[in-house]
Amino acid sequence: MHGTVLYGAHDIRFEEVAAPAILEPTDAIVSLPATCICGSDLWPYRGIQGVSRPAPMGHEYCGFVEEVGREVTSIKPGQFVIGSFFASDNTCPHCRAGYQTSCQQRTPVAGAQAPRLRVPLADGTLVATRDTPSDDLIPSMLALSDVMGTGWFAAEAADVKPGATVVVVGDGAVGLLGVLSAKQMGADRIIAMSRHASRQTLAREFGASDIVTERGDEGVERIKELTGGVGADSVLECVGTQESMQQAIRVTRPGGSVGYVGVPHGVTLDGTDLFFRHVRLLGGPAPVRRYLPDLIGLVFNGTINPGKVFDLTLPLNQVADGYRAMDERRAIKTLLRP
Amino acid sequence: MHGTVLYGAHDIRFEEVAAPAILEPTDAIVSLPATCICGSDLWPYRGIQGVSRPAPMGHEYCGFVEEVGREVTSIKPGQFVIGSFFASDNTCPHCRAGYQTSCQQRTPVAGAQAPRLRVPLADGTLVATRDTPSDDLIPSMLALSDVMGTGWFAAEAADVKPGATVVVVGDGAVGLLGVLSAKQMGADRIIAMSRHASRQTLAREFGASDIVTERGDEGVERIKELTGGVGADSVLECVGTQESMQQAIRVTRPGGSVGYVGVPHGVTLDGTDLFFRHVRLLGGPAPVRRYLPDLIGLVFNGTINPGKVFDLTLPLNQVADGYRAMDERRAIKTLLRP
Repeated sequence: MHGTVLYGAHDIRFEEVAAPAILEPTDAIVSLPATCICGSDLWPYRGIQGVSRPAPMGHEYCGFVEEVGREVTSIKPGQFVIGSFFASDNTCPHCRAGYQTSCQQRTPVAGAQAPRLRVPLADGTLVATRDTPSDDLIPSMLALSDVMGTGWFAAEAADVKPGATVVVVGDGAVGLLGVLSAKQMGADRIIAMSRHASRQTLAREFGASDIVTERGDEGVERIKELTGGVGADSVLECVGTQESMQQAIRVTRPGGSVGYVGVPHGVTLDGTDLFFRHVRLLGGPAPVRRYLPDLIGLVFNGTINPGKVFDLTLPLNQVADGYRAMDERRAIKTLLRP
Repeated sequence: MHGTVLYGAHDIRFEEVAAPAILEPTDAIVSLPATCICGSDLWPYRGIQGVSRPAPMGHEYCGFVEEVGREVTSIKPGQFVIGSFFASDNTCPHCRAGYQTSCQQRTPVAGAQAPRLRVPLADGTLVATRDTPSDDLIPSMLALSDVMGTGWFAAEAADVKPGATVVVVGDGAVGLLGVLSAKQMGADRIIAMSRHASRQTLAREFGASDIVTERGDEGVERIKELTGGVGADSVLECVGTQESMQQAIRVTRPGGSVGYVGVPHGVTLDGTDLFFRHVRLLGGPAPVRRYLPDLIGLVFNGTINPGKVFDLTLPLNQVADGYRAMDERRAIKTLLRP
């Protein structure tokens, strides 16, 4: 089997790799009708996050169960399943509290930019759909595995309530799906910070009422203007840099909330500043597993169409072109078909 | 009039000061049957927070209105009133959202360690009691001005829910009243971190079910043991140092909340660490004004007795001894009577 491996900064190869096999009795093997590249894959791709050895890439997946280990009881071959980028047992206290990405048995899923994938802790990790989705629904189902659930968590962590004024920092796929999530949660006004025409268009389609192109001090000032000097009730931070986090915190009203889902890279927070701003913070790897049953329903009934974030589709063996397109911001998110 | 002035580290003087007078038409002058020293007064007293010029001290107060400015409409001479350590208009958007300590007209109150006090924005800041409290209720009414409301905010910010497991970091007056607040909010288990016998006793009286004397790694381990390896649902950080904040964050379960009310001194948070811990943070100067009406009722009907945190009473002119006793941790909190 061929799969995607990162050797170092900007060195992505699609090459022969070991075929996935049942290693633990709780594993499943899933065949993937489509896979994709995540914004977070760009951190190691750009060399900002080092890789010590060739790393199998890809953690977003949905597809058909081919084989399960002998201890797997609820997941069966032939089912269409979606899972999170972290495998979880879904039974430990953290899972039961709804934070499956902090599962006591948490295991990263890797190697999904390939035709087939091994998923650990299959019973806890995978959610089977009742019906097999039609091919046109596959991109949206695939988005549920990470970006859609991550945008949803950003909105939930930012405590979006009906009638709220919301700011979304970051116009990547997660930020755009954060807009969609805030809209679903009843936000009245959604201000998307974006400088890219195609992303602005999609943000508006997903429910953004305002677009702010300014950044830094000017961005803060513009949001203050738009909110009568008050700031936003809820702010979704979907980038992960010091600048984006500061932007998010500074446009939040006292008593408001920041939900941050961009994996932090070099982010440091000053306790005194946070204290006097009265800003509530919650972030982390999105507990996608918790949301899957509901979000699958919303995709099936056509309420949401998160697959729209895929604006480039390539054959899987051109995965390196997909990384380049996202790195150069020519594509929001790349779908790969085997 | 004599009042309390800090000249520099450990240099507290009770000396002739200008008598308070109406400076703005929204001011009130209040005569104080009692006043007190706050744990936060110890930061400048210890020289950790510099004072550039002699600083009038004291920001906790209750008492009788003597005089009001011409624009004051709801507060009247003769009323017994309590106010917050920050004056607020109680009408701006931040006040209406319940964050009066972020009021757009926020003004610190200073000089309350004296027989009389000028309070700015009297209509917004002061809450008049329906009846005049008896003398034995004065300490509890005085506690509402800051420490009790601050303990309450810590518990609220830490999202204490009925049945919750709560940890309180810090056994000063605020921490102890955080225990009391968590109990009022229905916490099932309240673990107080304290090494001082008298404070442990009061913590238990206020509702603590467990006392942990260990700190640092050992403290974290002990809390993990007590919570079956899971951590606490809600943690109240009532100190304000890097160590106490880390302690609080490290004993919180994923998805749990830290409410921090210790004024941060040198606190820095690492974004990546917070992200992977899934800990919700909210802190700041407590919006005491929001809580005053309810807490006054709870004191009048005997439900709470926050005045118990005063374990030393001195004549006001011995205020310097009061600072020393708190600095040396011989007293939890000093009440001063003119």
